[in-house]
Amino acid sequence: MIPGYAGKVLHIDLTKGSVRKLRLRKSFIKSYIGGKGFGARFLYDMVTPRINPLSPSNPLMFFTGPVTATGAPASARDVVVTKSPKTGTFLDSNSGGFWGCWLKIAGYDGLIITGRAQKLSYIYINDGSVEIRDATGLKGFGVYATTEALVKEVGDKNAKVAAIGPAGENLVKLAGIVNDLHHVHARGGPGAVMGSKNLKAIVISAEPRKPRFEIADKDGFTDYNRKIIKEVVMGPPEEWARTDGTPIIVRWSNDVGVLPTRNFQQGVFEDVDKIDAEVMRSFRTSKGACYRCSIACRNLTKIKDDKWGEIELDGPEYETIALGGSNTGLSDFKAIIAWNSLADDLGMDTISLGNVTALAMEAFEKGYLDKDVLGGMELRFGDADVQMELAKMIAYRKGIGDVLAEGAREFVAWLGGDAYKLAMETKGLEYPAYDPRGSIGMALAYATADRGACHLRAWPIAAEAFGDMDPFTTEGKAKLVIDMQDLNAVKWSMVFCDFLDADYELITNYFNHVTGLNYKPETMKLIGERINNLIRLFNVREGFSRKDDYIPYRVAYEEMPVGPNKGFRVKPELFKRMLDEYYKLRGWDRNGVPKKGKLRKLGLGRDISRMNVSGIIS
Amino acid sequence: MIPGYAGKVLHIDLTKGSVRKLRLRKSFIKSYIGGKGFGARFLYDMVTPRINPLSPSNPLMFFTGPVTATGAPASARDVVVTKSPKTGTFLDSNSGGFWGCWLKIAGYDGLIITGRAQKLSYIYINDGSVEIRDATGLKGFGVYATTEALVKEVGDKNAKVAAIGPAGENLVKLAGIVNDLHHVHARGGPGAVMGSKNLKAIVISAEPRKPRFEIADKDGFTDYNRKIIKEVVMGPPEEWARTDGTPIIVRWSNDVGVLPTRNFQQGVFEDVDKIDAEVMRSFRTSKGACYRCSIACRNLTKIKDDKWGEIELDGPEYETIALGGSNTGLSDFKAIIAWNSLADDLGMDTISLGNVTALAMEAFEKGYLDKDVLGGMELRFGDADVQMELAKMIAYRKGIGDVLAEGAREFVAWLGGDAYKLAMETKGLEYPAYDPRGSIGMALAYATADRGACHLRAWPIAAEAFGDMDPFTTEGKAKLVIDMQDLNAVKWSMVFCDFLDADYELITNYFNHVTGLNYKPETMKLIGERINNLIRLFNVREGFSRKDDYIPYRVAYEEMPVGPNKGFRVKPELFKRMLDEYYKLRGWDRNGVPKKGKLRKLGLGRDISRMNVSGIIS
Repeated sequence: MIPGYAGKVLHIDLTKGSVRKLRLRKSFIKSYIGGKGFGARFLYDMVTPRINPLSPSNPLMFFTGPVTATGAPASARDVVVTKSPKTGTFLDSNSGGFWGCWLKIAGYDGLIITGRAQKLSYIYINDGSVEIRDATGLKGFGVYATTEALVKEVGDKNAKVAAIGPAGENLVKLAGIVNDLHHVHARGGPGAVMGSKNLKAIVISAEPRKPRFEIADKDGFTDYNRKIIKEVVMGPPEEWARTDGTPIIVRWSNDVGVLPTRNFQQGVFEDVDKIDAEVMRSFRTSKGACYRCSIACRNLTKIKDDKWGEIELDGPEYETIALGGSNTGLSDFKAIIAWNSLADDLGMDTISLGNVTALAMEAFEKGYLDKDVLGGMELRFGDADVQMELAKMIAYRKGIGDVLAEGAREFVAWLGGDAYKLAMETKGLEYPAYDPRGSIGMALAYATADRGACHLRAWPIAAEAFGDMDPFTTEGKAKLVIDMQDLNAVKWSMVFCDFLDADYELITNYFNHVTGLNYKPETMKLIGERINNLIRLFNVREGFSRKDDYIPYRVAYEEMPVGPNKGFRVKPELFKRMLDEYYKLRGWDRNGVPKKGKLRKLGLGRDISRMNVSGIIS
Repeated sequence: MIPGYAGKVLHIDLTKGSVRKLRLRKSFIKSYIGGKGFGARFLYDMVTPRINPLSPSNPLMFFTGPVTATGAPASARDVVVTKSPKTGTFLDSNSGGFWGCWLKIAGYDGLIITGRAQKLSYIYINDGSVEIRDATGLKGFGVYATTEALVKEVGDKNAKVAAIGPAGENLVKLAGIVNDLHHVHARGGPGAVMGSKNLKAIVISAEPRKPRFEIADKDGFTDYNRKIIKEVVMGPPEEWARTDGTPIIVRWSNDVGVLPTRNFQQGVFEDVDKIDAEVMRSFRTSKGACYRCSIACRNLTKIKDDKWGEIELDGPEYETIALGGSNTGLSDFKAIIAWNSLADDLGMDTISLGNVTALAMEAFEKGYLDKDVLGGMELRFGDADVQMELAKMIAYRKGIGDVLAEGAREFVAWLGGDAYKLAMETKGLEYPAYDPRGSIGMALAYATADRGACHLRAWPIAAEAFGDMDPFTTEGKAKLVIDMQDLNAVKWSMVFCDFLDADYELITNYFNHVTGLNYKPETMKLIGERINNLIRLFNVREGFSRKDDYIPYRVAYEEMPVGPNKGFRVKPELFKRMLDEYYKLRGWDRNGVPKKGKLRKLGLGRDISRMNVSGIIS
């Protein structure tokens, strides 16, 4: 086996109750690296077009990568891959913490789960052995209680747990899979897929001192790792992450006028002073880190309060503060911590949750929803109690929460009329916390991201409002977005965390030290492009095309009313220009479909004919 | 209001608990007639692309048409329209009996249901009043017990009930909506949509002597109706329907070698003598008719048996006998009656159920499934006990039934490998009972049918193996399929039943007598084309295109092994030729997308731009 890999993937079918160990081919590893890349290939090969994401045939897969658990900075990460029940697209969702490392240490590069258990179950991976166990006693449990109960039940204090909460059990489309209490594979509804499989949790026992994988060039790796920790991690590039972590972005975003406020009605928040990093620090008890990560970006916070009780949290991150703070008009940081903690326990994506909460509030304030429908409840911006209550209503699918549980697009579809004007989403995934009306490249990034509106595929705002590029013009944005998407596809395949300021050279050096292979940075770049094209092919096969690469009404037609971007909107013709250029540079046709020549260059030639597999003759 | 219409559509939202009465615009009625046409327009306008068919935002709609409940032959019919949870396409499913007539007599041309009730409920329409009532006591009830209980509960012996069984409650994708005990809106999973809304039944009380609609030209209508009954219904065209009804087709199909046998492995059944119309007659107690239908095609049968007990059935129809008889290798007619009765009670589509049952049997016999997975059960063709057991396992989602509950495509996707070679489906809808390898036009009919493989959109076999056209050549088949599809779109809009041998002239005459309008047959033809193009536009918007208009592997690559069609298969190049011609004649592009010029001619010009509604800017 290639060093850096355990060489095995577990395939568990919950309908059959079967456990198989698959050996990975070397050519496969070399072409797709790990993590997202592995997932892209497996999903393309395993998923018949148009299957229901919540049916037994949809695989729920977890993958690690060559750097996972090696002690490289920002390498304590795994990727969940499945067909998204929220968007119908390919989905990969990352998470940090310890659980993913434990999976690899226990000897698995990945875990593929198909079928559906007849009763609520959990999987216990105890180094070599794998069991499917009864979890009916945990029905309805939150993530915290589930984690505690399972660590106890398996009798290993060091066991790591990835679990779903009530939201996942109730097939809420905002449901994530939560590992190590507060690390969430959040976006795109992987928790609903896990819930549809009647799978409450995956528990792993492993011996970190005896990892079941090798590092090819140990000395070289150690030297290089020291150098990177010294120069990059402990140097200026990571200072923000080492000190305040993502909450620092609250201030950055507000300063440049892109901080989503009251459902993206504006980009500056009058109470930003109450939710910024300084405020966060006042609740911080210590810094924290994922497994062997030298960045240690995590903020461990605590509140003790008559209203919310005593809460300890690993968080909140920027996206949570923005979507559940300024975007819902909430300026009470304690309440944000309490809401974040509740969302983790219920098992939900705070980005989508904050987004749909704000959407419901705007819909109420604008008269799309009346009190009768809400049993007298008033959905006002800034009301912490309402925000908490809505989170529970969504997780338990109560009242209006049952509709919000499907997401922003479905909610406005249900409201009907022109309610669509309020929904901030692309492909059914809710917008994260950067308003494109202050960095036009973000409009393209969200529109073309594989899993729907996502800031972790490309983050052009780094170069635009937070950098030197003009944030209001389209020039160079298509290339910027493509370059970032391809680089990130490689990062999520290694699997590195977003917080490592990594270029192809750094990534390739790590890869070569770990695997003993001799890749060039250009090869890595090609692999990133290959992964993104294969994923696009998956989405095209599912019926996605140009029509699905869109921006919301508000972004296109409503000018930013206040702040530094006042008067700006992403005019459809500007967006069209970027999208046309994007397709052209990608080697895709006008409809967003990869051309044969491009696919052949990427080694995906035979996948064109595979577009018609599965008995599909046309 | 235009005569022939009640002029009102009920809109009930189960999340809000609201009831609204919508008035229909005359221009709308004139453009879309009723039934399927109404549904096509409403679904296109109400459904945001890519919503989850089982979410609150998907409308479940029932429509009647201008001839419904008028006493015209074959006019006791309604259409359910929704986005199919089985295929993701537009779905219309018809049903006869009395319930649809009661809806119109009570004063409604249609019923639109959105949202989701918090607890299991039923709707009671009592002439003018509409209530949403508790049905939690009926949870898990079969259709028969539900119907009986509700007729009693509302205190009107003459009340008509449309209900779901356990299959619908369990969101089984084969679930239909059953009215009047044995009439099923069967195909495409409308019962799962009703189940997802927590709606167990819709009960209607009405006064047939006081219908809440007019007939414009009563005398003219009566005269014309008498003439048609005499010449068409009582004449040779309907003799087959009046005498044996559809079971007569068992023999026709076997004679021409298209009777699906053991999952379409062959087209002749060695035990056809045991399942044909003659055998059916030996169990028939009387003939039956839907509301005021002069054809009276129904066969009321009865068995009394140690094994199956005493069963009275309104059926079985040809499709049920073929899919649940020859196709599962079952030659015991009593068992077929028992299975049909069970399927009606559980609330399932016998076509899809018989198809996936046979698929599972072939998968077992070919080693794709082993006994371990099945708890020792052996899925052998011809085993009535296994066939009954599988129906229950599917309805209750037990064991392998949980996967089969998703349909043939999902089942083979779950099996993996080359299992797709066994699945007989298009767009995820299972093949009905005519093997295209004995009438090549059926391959095109199934491939291009709006809701997936369906014989009720076009039935070219009538002209091919059952008529004078060469069944093995492609010439003229595209035009034949298009003509039939457009005519049927009009029939399902009137709403006429399939068993009226109707051309545009007959339909137009009825329409004009009822409405007082003065349509020409050409206008009707144009409306049929309009409806089919609007539906195609809906499907395109959902991502469907040429890639989804396919034929199964078996049809394309496996030659018919025995019988009159021995050695024939639908070679991909032959299929491609028909499909190319079909698109060309339709005025659609090579990818199956309607061209703008065609849409403009059909009055759908503005719907092109509507492709990008709902906040979709691209």
